[in-house]
Order: sequence, then C-alpha cells, then structure tokens
Amino acid sequence: MIAAGADFKTWMSAVQARIETVLENSLPTDEHMPARLHQAMRYAVLDGGKRVRPLLVFAAGELVGADPARLDHAAAAVELIHAYSLVHDDMPAMDNDVLRRGKPTVHVAFDEATALLAGDALQTAAFESLSKQVLTDDARDQIAMVHLLAKASGSHGMCGGQGIDLYSVGKALTLPELELMHILKTGALIRASVLLGAHCGSKLDAAALAGLDHAAKCVGLAFQVIDDILDCEADSATLGKTAGKDAANDKPTYVSLLGLPAAKEKAAELQREAHAALDALGANAARLKQVADFIVARRS
Amino acid sequence: MIAAGADFKTWMSAVQARIETVLENSLPTDEHMPARLHQAMRYAVLDGGKRVRPLLVFAAGELVGADPARLDHAAAAVELIHAYSLVHDDMPAMDNDVLRRGKPTVHVAFDEATALLAGDALQTAAFESLSKQVLTDDARDQIAMVHLLAKASGSHGMCGGQGIDLYSVGKALTLPELELMHILKTGALIRASVLLGAHCGSKLDAAALAGLDHAAKCVGLAFQVIDDILDCEADSATLGKTAGKDAANDKPTYVSLLGLPAAKEKAAELQREAHAALDALGANAARLKQVADFIVARRS
Repeated sequence: MIAAGADFKTWMSAVQARIETVLENSLPTDEHMPARLHQAMRYAVLDGGKRVRPLLVFAAGELVGADPARLDHAAAAVELIHAYSLVHDDMPAMDNDVLRRGKPTVHVAFDEATALLAGDALQTAAFESLSKQVLTDDARDQIAMVHLLAKASGSHGMCGGQGIDLYSVGKALTLPELELMHILKTGALIRASVLLGAHCGSKLDAAALAGLDHAAKCVGLAFQVIDDILDCEADSATLGKTAGKDAANDKPTYVSLLGLPAAKEKAAELQREAHAALDALGANAARLKQVADFIVARRS
Repeated sequence: MIAAGADFKTWMSAVQARIETVLENSLPTDEHMPARLHQAMRYAVLDGGKRVRPLLVFAAGELVGADPARLDHAAAAVELIHAYSLVHDDMPAMDNDVLRRGKPTVHVAFDEATALLAGDALQTAAFESLSKQVLTDDARDQIAMVHLLAKASGSHGMCGGQGIDLYSVGKALTLPELELMHILKTGALIRASVLLGAHCGSKLDAAALAGLDHAAKCVGLAFQVIDDILDCEADSATLGKTAGKDAANDKPTYVSLLGLPAAKEKAAELQREAHAALDALGANAARLKQVADFIVARRS
C-alpha cells in the first residue's frame, strides 16, 4: 500500500515500484511462444521511464479514494499505450531513433518486424488490462473507461497528434496548430490518465469533473512544452534519448515558435492554471498538484 | 433489417452492404486533421474484402436473436482489427506486399509512416467501436466482449500467430506447431467473431457456448487451410493479392506439410466437425453453417 500522507518522493518511488511489478506480472513471458515477441514487449516496457502517466492515475485516484488494486490496471493500460507509441514512433519509417531511455530502441535491439508486432500487441494489452477485472462499482463506468482510452489513443487523440507531427516536418505551424498537435499527441493520454484514475473511485460531480479535466489538459500541454525545452537544452545522456532532434528534423516546437524564455513562461503559466483548477477540488487534489509540479520541474 | 429466412446469397449481400455503411460512418473523414491519416484508414477498410468476420458476427447473432444494431458494433470491431493487421502485415518489415484486395497496399498508396499510424489507429478504433454504445443487457458482458477481443488480437492471439509465422520462415514446423500458429494467427479472430456475435443476444448455457466455441475453432482453422490451398492454386488476379507467396517465402503451410489432396481433405473434415457442433445447437445455427460452408467453398 501507498501511504496517502507520504512526502512526494516517497510516494513517487512507491508508485513507480508498484507499477513496475504490475507491468512485470501482466506482460507475457518468453516461456510462451513467440518468445522473441514477448521478450521485445518486456524490453519496451519494463525498467524504464518515470512512469508519469501511472503517477497521474494514482494521484487522481487519491482525489476520489480509489482502491489501488483498481488503479493498477488503469495505470498499466495508459503506460502500455505510451510504451507502444514509443516503439512505433522510434521506427525507421517514423523518427528513426536508435536510443530510448538510455537503451537501443526496440527495432535496433530486435528487428523492425518484431518492433511493429510488439507495438501492436502492447496496444492490445492496454485494452486487455482495462477489461480483465472489475475496476468500477457500476460496470457502465468501466466501459466508459475503455471508450475514454480509445478516444485518447486513436486518430482523434495520440495517433492523430503523431500524424499531424509527421506531416508538419519542415512546415511552418501557427501556435494554435502546434497547440492542437500537442494536445492530441501528448495531452490526450495525459488527460486520460487523470480521468481514468478518477473513474476508479467515488463519483465526482459534473463541476468537479470539468475542473479536473481542465487541470489535466494544462498538465498535458505543460508536459509537452517542457519536452520541447529539454530537447533544446539537455544533452542525450541526461535525456536517455537523442537530444536536439527537433531542430535537426526542422520540427516546429514551442521553443522554435516562442523562443526559450517565452516557452518557459508558457510552462509556468500552465502550471499556475493547473494549480488553480486543482485548488478548487480541495485537499485531496494535493497529490495531483505535486505530480504537476514534478512534470514541470523535471530535467529529463 | 436483414430477413432471417433469406437465402444465403441475399443475406450475405445484405450484411456486406450493412457493414460497409457501418464502417463508412464510423471511420473518421479527411475533413478532420490529420487528413492523410484518415484517408489511409478509410482506404484500408472500405470497399474491400468479403467481410467474413462480420458475416460470422451476424450469423452468430441469429443464433441468439441479437439486435442487428448491436451486432453492427461487434462486426465493425472485428473487421477493424482484421484491417489493421493486414495493413501492418503488408509493410516492408513484414511481408513486404504491394497488392491487397486488388489495390496497392497502404504503404504503397500512401507511405510507410502513414501505414504504421493507420494500422495503429484502426486497432484503437476497434476498441472504440466495442465501447461507444450499449451492446449487452448486462454491462459486465460488454466488458467481457472487450476482453475477448483483446485476448484474440494480442500476443496470445492474432499478433502471437503473426510472430510465430514471422519466426518460422525457412524453418521446419511440425503439424501441431503449424496448427498452433494458425489457431492464433487467423483462428483466434474468427472465433472471437462468432463469440462476440453470440454475446449480443440472449445468453447461451455453458454447453451450448462450448459447442459454439468448438465450431468456431473448426471454422477458423478451415479458413486458414483454404487460404493455404488458394495461395497455391489461385492466381493473383483472382485472389486480389500476390499468389504463390508462401512457397516463394519458404513458409510452412498445410499444403507444403500435407500435400494438396490431404490439405483439401483436412478442410472438409473441419467443415464436417463444425457442422456437427452447429447441428447440436438447433435450427437457429443454420446461418452459421452456411457461413462455414461459404468459407470452405470460397475461391478467393
């Protein structure tokens, strides 16, 4: 169990350890055929990343007093979607990247066909995770969770954002266009993480849900602004992935559009907006505020 | 509506037209960004194929008196999973095929990155389809449908079968190994089609469900045996995809393992076994028998 009153670092480590175990147990092992595919799935998911999306699921769960055993499955689902998107995004046809979380990317460590299949199977595993156990008192709410994750991940969500990203290389995007791209590409799944966590506990009224949703959107966008800043400022060793990629690929970013100081001010503004929305939700939103702060303060 | 008593060809045409409209309406249009991704998704799904899996969903629906409006979503879901698997399977990293349903494959007509994303988004769309409306009287049954589709599609189902297929090129497989590969690669989704259709109506008792499941497994395996035979016997124009590919790729098939006459006998045997299991389910299983016969008799 994770103590609700623990300081942020202790809580974060506990959630990260917990989700690692959940993912470890939910992913197929190479004792089952096809062994190589299962090895690649585990390689892509385990022992890597800050688990930002699971942190948001568990923090939102604290807001509604959700059972951590239910949050496990929601957190695994969003992390599996995130992991699949990284595997496919790194492939030669997309970003053609060789380094991820300090390790060779899946298509480098295995092969392209395995990376393609592993990504596919990880997406499926996310929906399996959301449907294998009871996660809500009212079963209709669990179907709503499946729908929410699907909407956030598909062509009107994450995949759509990746598409806009892909087709925008070398093109001039306006700030609203860039914002739409990021709201879809990164923001949709960040937002879904918060809402999925909130679905696992006592029901929020419409006003609270709207406030939570607004905070989640701010956090999602802040996440991407920080990502753009880090891609420009940090080195590859710190990032665990190739730095300076956006400029090299002539990709529009918050930094290229606004300049570094204004991009940093944008992140701070989104953080303040998220805080204001979360403050209105009361003391149980404290953990979500901490995760929002962590996302803005991260250096990798 | 589709008349329950219609002759098979009339019924099949009606279901095919119906699912085309359902898919047409459920897929995003290129009025929404990213237009190219949405074009590719529609290109991959619409105006193609015999819609065998939707036919099975609707035939199983007749067994349990299911509302066709519910079957629409289950049928769309399995067809979207099938379509995504074809898009990814045709990519250069996998089968590197240029022809599908008589048209250039998605990565040829568009590009590899778009094919990758379109496949990803089509898989998501399948789970969206299963979760956007009420499909069962008991909501728990609908969550079970999501789980069933996920299990059938993931690394212990279709994706796993594709993995075994991938890693078996140039290797000698035993008949049981070949059978496992096909049970996963093709059989799992065929089976899921039947079971999803059966979930949308009045509940079957455990014995009937087991009988239906057995028939569905036989149909799934027969489908693949026939596929192997057609790959060997038919020409590309009839098939609408590249013929003779298995032999060219040194892939183990029922034909390469058993020889053509024994492969045909295997298909006939599976058809008889499916008939026997379906006969035990009574008159309402007549449509499923017809679809099973259609699968075995098809020439493309």
